Amino acid sequence: MPNDLLRATRARSLQLAAPLSDEDAQLQSMPDASPAKWHLAHTTWFFETLVLAPYLPDYRLFDERWPRLFNSYYESLGPRHARPQRGLLSRPSMAEVRAYRAHVDAALADLLPVASAEARGLIELGCHHEQQHQELLLTDILHAFSCNPLLPAYDATPPAPTQAPAQEWLEHPGGIVDIGHAGAGFAFDNEGPRHRVLIEPFEIASRLVTCGEYADFVESGGYREPLLWLSDGWALAQAQGWQRPAYWLEDGRVFGLHGAQAMDRDAPVMQLSFYEACAYAEWAGARLPTEFEWEAACGLPGFAQAADQAWQWTRSAYSPYPGFKPAPGAVGEYNGKFMVGQQVLRGGSLATPPGHARPTYRNFFPPAARWQFSGVRLAR
Amino acid sequence: MPNDLLRATRARSLQLAAPLSDEDAQLQSMPDASPAKWHLAHTTWFFETLVLAPYLPDYRLFDERWPRLFNSYYESLGPRHARPQRGLLSRPSMAEVRAYRAHVDAALADLLPVASAEARGLIELGCHHEQQHQELLLTDILHAFSCNPLLPAYDATPPAPTQAPAQEWLEHPGGIVDIGHAGAGFAFDNEGPRHRVLIEPFEIASRLVTCGEYADFVESGGYREPLLWLSDGWALAQAQGWQRPAYWLEDGRVFGLHGAQAMDRDAPVMQLSFYEACAYAEWAGARLPTEFEWEAACGLPGFAQAADQAWQWTRSAYSPYPGFKPAPGAVGEYNGKFMVGQQVLRGGSLATPPGHARPTYRNFFPPAARWQFSGVRLAR
Amino acid sequence: MPNDLLRATRARSLQLAAPLSDEDAQLQSMPDASPAKWHLAHTTWFFETLVLAPYLPDYRLFDERWPRLFNSYYESLGPRHARPQRGLLSRPSMAEVRAYRAHVDAALADLLPVASAEARGLIELGCHHEQQHQELLLTDILHAFSCNPLLPAYDATPPAPTQAPAQEWLEHPGGIVDIGHAGAGFAFDNEGPRHRVLIEPFEIASRLVTCGEYADFVESGGYREPLLWLSDGWALAQAQGWQRPAYWLEDGRVFGLHGAQAMDRDAPVMQLSFYEACAYAEWAGARLPTEFEWEAACGLPGFAQAADQAWQWTRSAYSPYPGFKPAPGAVGEYNGKFMVGQQVLRGGSLATPPGHARPTYRNFFPPAARWQFSGVRLAR
Amino acid sequence: MPNDLLRATRARSLQLAAPLSDEDAQLQSMPDASPAKWHLAHTTWFFETLVLAPYLPDYRLFDERWPRLFNSYYESLGPRHARPQRGLLSRPSMAEVRAYRAHVDAALADLLPVASAEARGLIELGCHHEQQHQELLLTDILHAFSCNPLLPAYDATPPAPTQAPAQEWLEHPGGIVDIGHAGAGFAFDNEGPRHRVLIEPFEIASRLVTCGEYADFVESGGYREPLLWLSDGWALAQAQGWQRPAYWLEDGRVFGLHGAQAMDRDAPVMQLSFYEACAYAEWAGARLPTEFEWEAACGLPGFAQAADQAWQWTRSAYSPYPGFKPAPGAVGEYNGKFMVGQQVLRGGSLATPPGHARPTYRNFFPPAARWQFSGVRLAR
Repeated sequence: MPNDLLRATRARSLQLAAPLSDEDAQLQSMPDASPAKWHLAHTTWFFETLVLAPYLPDYRLFDERWPRLFNSYYESLGPRHARPQRGLLSRPSMAEVRAYRAHVDAALADLLPVASAEARGLIELGCHHEQQHQELLLTDILHAFSCNPLLPAYDATPPAPTQAPAQEWLEHPGGIVDIGHAGAGFAFDNEGPRHRVLIEPFEIASRLVTCGEYADFVESGGYREPLLWLSDGWALAQAQGWQRPAYWLEDGRVFGLHGAQAMDRDAPVMQLSFYEACAYAEWAGARLPTEFEWEAACGLPGFAQAADQAWQWTRSAYSPYPGFKPAPGAVGEYNGKFMVGQQVLRGGSLATPPGHARPTYRNFFPPAARWQFSGVRLAR
Repeated sequence: MPNDLLRATRARSLQLAAPLSDEDAQLQSMPDASPAKWHLAHTTWFFETLVLAPYLPDYRLFDERWPRLFNSYYESLGPRHARPQRGLLSRPSMAEVRAYRAHVDAALADLLPVASAEARGLIELGCHHEQQHQELLLTDILHAFSCNPLLPAYDATPPAPTQAPAQEWLEHPGGIVDIGHAGAGFAFDNEGPRHRVLIEPFEIASRLVTCGEYADFVESGGYREPLLWLSDGWALAQAQGWQRPAYWLEDGRVFGLHGAQAMDRDAPVMQLSFYEACAYAEWAGARLPTEFEWEAACGLPGFAQAADQAWQWTRSAYSPYPGFKPAPGAVGEYNGKFMVGQQVLRGGSLATPPGHARPTYRNFFPPAARWQFSGVRLAR
Repeated sequence: MPNDLLRATRARSLQLAAPLSDEDAQLQSMPDASPAKWHLAHTTWFFETLVLAPYLPDYRLFDERWPRLFNSYYESLGPRHARPQRGLLSRPSMAEVRAYRAHVDAALADLLPVASAEARGLIELGCHHEQQHQELLLTDILHAFSCNPLLPAYDATPPAPTQAPAQEWLEHPGGIVDIGHAGAGFAFDNEGPRHRVLIEPFEIASRLVTCGEYADFVESGGYREPLLWLSDGWALAQAQGWQRPAYWLEDGRVFGLHGAQAMDRDAPVMQLSFYEACAYAEWAGARLPTEFEWEAACGLPGFAQAADQAWQWTRSAYSPYPGFKPAPGAVGEYNGKFMVGQQVLRGGSLATPPGHARPTYRNFFPPAARWQFSGVRLAR
Repeated sequence: MPNDLLRATRARSLQLAAPLSDEDAQLQSMPDASPAKWHLAHTTWFFETLVLAPYLPDYRLFDERWPRLFNSYYESLGPRHARPQRGLLSRPSMAEVRAYRAHVDAALADLLPVASAEARGLIELGCHHEQQHQELLLTDILHAFSCNPLLPAYDATPPAPTQAPAQEWLEHPGGIVDIGHAGAGFAFDNEGPRHRVLIEPFEIASRLVTCGEYADFVESGGYREPLLWLSDGWALAQAQGWQRPAYWLEDGRVFGLHGAQAMDRDAPVMQLSFYEACAYAEWAGARLPTEFEWEAACGLPGFAQAADQAWQWTRSAYSPYPGFKPAPGAVGEYNGKFMVGQQVLRGGSLATPPGHARPTYRNFFPPAARWQFSGVRLAR
């Protein structure tokens, strides 16, 4: 099972990078985004550092100067190249990074037949970690392309038009619900411990807010009415001159993986910040669901676009579940240390690898983030 | 009742400002802090704008140019003088601000006997609002004095030594508890609606962490060990060179309202950021309580230093309670629009006006704030 | 002679501060400006540190904690309070600073009868230094008042209307001229050594550019035409949204020492940056004079408004004259270390103390400075 | 003659880029530096826009979307891609830029036989412009490589050791000298008009300051002694933690085009800012020459390392010569609009294309620039 997951995951990363030139793969358009080449190397470093070095006897680092280049944020794993400078690494070349991947893949193939349960667990973690970076690879290259006046398309084929499902309010009776992961399958540490939460009765939208609906908000002056906005959001929107979603062009087109395209009014609106999501909800006379409401409702009949279009901002700040303890060692830096100042998103997006997300999955970003596949599902 | 509250509140503000020279009263040491003179005027503007203008017939503004100077952040009440420039208002003078207060007090005295229930409600709100600013007046002048190499004392009398109560772990059985305000007395909108929350069994410390205990953390290298810190906190601590609490001087003394004094190891540690509070808790093998745990536990026998020493950071982000709706009109901007990016503090401090806080009271500040009377109570 | 100069200079500083409240005197509206109280104390510190401490036997510092508060930038005289935080010094109070001045004045009176030539030279330097700060006191309080929406007037009497002299082009034949100070009177070190400079024939305007002339430039689109501007100036003007001189109000009035007044089209335009001065000259088909041309021409018949209205930006960067050597010791930090990145202004302004300036006088400011009494005299 | 110059210049740019991968060619390590690919395209845009479009009938733009990408700073030639984002242009690719060059080269070959004198003049200007960018291509890629912890070498061959010429003081008698370009050959507009300058007698060093000499300055505490520094320089050095030249590594090696190499104590010190150059001169009991002294002295017998090692900071701010007028049209934006806030460098460097510099050549950079081949020649 890890065999197949590992092989498929490793192959998929290269497939995602295939449409990119070596020049594309080096782009870093802001400190929060990373080059595609860096994603390919960092996910490889993760296996090398956390799996091969400790568990494969006589493993030799591919290049002992590289770990500092490709460590993301693990304080316990040594010094790191400054994040905003990842785009300055023309060396190693993309070809060298591909060789690095092959070297590590070969070593993992050697290890797998003899791997301990602990090692196998880390390999599985490495796969899910790499899947996360697969989505980031897409979000980050999309942002980089959005900074090029030529507006290159990651995928030059025309997008399929969307047919928005009917919008209905699904009712949930509230009560004590079980929240968080339990059972045999893989989950990240931040999805547990599973615990009980008491929620009040609520209604939740059957689908995501569409571009057409959001365009009505824009046209009605939503970006000029401070009373719709959270204070921090309004201040940021003023300082940066927000007038519409980040990837909506002045000429009415919308930028995305297929390049600049005419707006599809039925498609879910995306690349929204939490602030915009909240302002829209306020304007619409509704609110965002909490992450607990979302998790409780996502199995309701009629709950559409759960995880295949856009992540859904929730009204929940990203905090530890009762009894949460980070894992010991470097892996413990994975999720816990980010548990302040961010909001939880639930669901999954069109850029999320198949099989990656779960109903208990907790994605998280700062409320100002505008470059993710992030949209809105209303509640009330 | 509002009569007495109003008179006492208005008088207390002036008493708090009495030790300050006109020059002191104008100090603004950072954008987040305001001059004492501004606090005195802003709280007066609140009554003038929200009570006198709409409810007292023929009321004339004291000076029609002043509302824009003393509006804090109410978008619906017109333009505002930029917050970071409040310290540049040498005019109006302190004497003029005192005259403004007298003018408004007289008008309020005229209104009170004939005030409608609605107006009386707003007067009561204005009193509680002014009490909040009384604490801010102290926190802000303390920060300003901390920037003066002469380290002036707000109160030159020597402080009384503290005797720390014994530290014990109080047990709470968990279960479904009622959270939030209900009943007849005053409360802010963010304290409701009262609702049920399910909490797990937990233990909470009977008192606050002391300076002596925190000094052990500092001496053991707590400010040099990244694994104890949240990621944002570590980044900020590095960028700003944190080595100890903001008001702990290099020579071992601690700065406070009584000036620079020898450290009282039994006194609660204060002026901590949320980041420092979390790092300490991690080091101590404990954690911060949630705001629900705090509220559920604060009535337990042995729960000391609840509201008379320092506000207590909780692990809860500041979010709306289920069913929360901001009030209509300007008053609705009071609390709701700040509900992201901040952490809840519970309790009260030595600078909180007597009678101001409640067990349901929700104070909130960004996690980086280091100039409030904010300390730590542990849970586990 | 130093006696009278000293007495008059010290008295004049207090006279200039007389219209200011203690609150006014503490205002610091930007890092480059200082509070009036600080100017009064710093000029006193200069005498205490450079004259009394070394030359008056048994002199005792007024307060040994103060030198670090009032040292401006002398690296060789110990640590300094950070410049942007001068406005945070509510203590010492204005009354204490007055007492400081009296203390130092008394000690100087003791010293004068017995002062060595060296000490007398330093006293003379201290007087000229204080005169410089007298002008800065006015420029700085004017800037601070300009930040207050109430636009307070330093001098509430109405200004006298100006009658602009006729504008003529004065001819200078060029040739080898002597530049720089020589002879018996006082001059700053940067005015020497006197040396020969070869200049080409040129013409210079007989008077300064008026507000009316500059208003034509503004109305003709001068602030929207990049080709008129130096590159750095255009970038700054765009970044900060310049549309007119800094003290020209949107409603057409002009802010100055007499408060906001109707524009006097005959009065010289002031508070211009070097960038604005250059753009205007380009628009007018002329240029700025070099500092050498200015010095050579200022004695020509018909050369009006030489030193009584506004300092005049020159096209000369502030550089050392051939053979310039800073004086040894702390005094050597006075002028030489600023000789890069600034432009020379010549003449004098309505805020310059009588007798302070000379034809060889070299004032200097960064090209972006917009809060000095600085205007334009054209050349071609 | 333009034929050969054009062919040789265009070919040399490609030769300089030959050692770079497509990834290297896209690096932009700071806003002031540009990618090699951008240099190759911008110099081509210059010919396309200023020569081919106006002078070659029926010329069609290679791609009409590109001019905005490759216009550097010409306000009169339309909107420009933001300078700090040049490194985000993965498209057009390096291959496309090579095709662009070939397209323009072919069109220039068509034009040359029939070009008017005006067009030929602009072609010559384009060649000298491209030569400037050839040096920038090297300085910029060197800076980019310096940001990569792997410290790649542009040229992996080992450097030849230097033998420093003997240091002597060359005497110049002063007097009236002719400064600036005159005569038939090419020169930039800022080198004229030729005019007379009066200089005093002086001495100038026969060679540049060596790494060994500069190392003595560093070791003697030169970076810790504020009195050696100009005020702006000291502030910057403190803020950025300067302890040695920018390309001197902590381990004693020096980074350059040949990668990190042991320090060659006889080689001229380079990549100095003006501030460091001045501080060194002060420490050495000397000063920097003015640009006039340099030009007057550069023909003296024994004047070594004039233009083949490092540009030489002068004490002259970059200002217009008497009578300087920018050319009409876009070309007039070439030099004149930068004439403030910069210092003149004279000579030439090992990265300057052969034949590019002249004794009258005026290079200029802000005093803080630390990534040019810029060194020190002393005067006194």
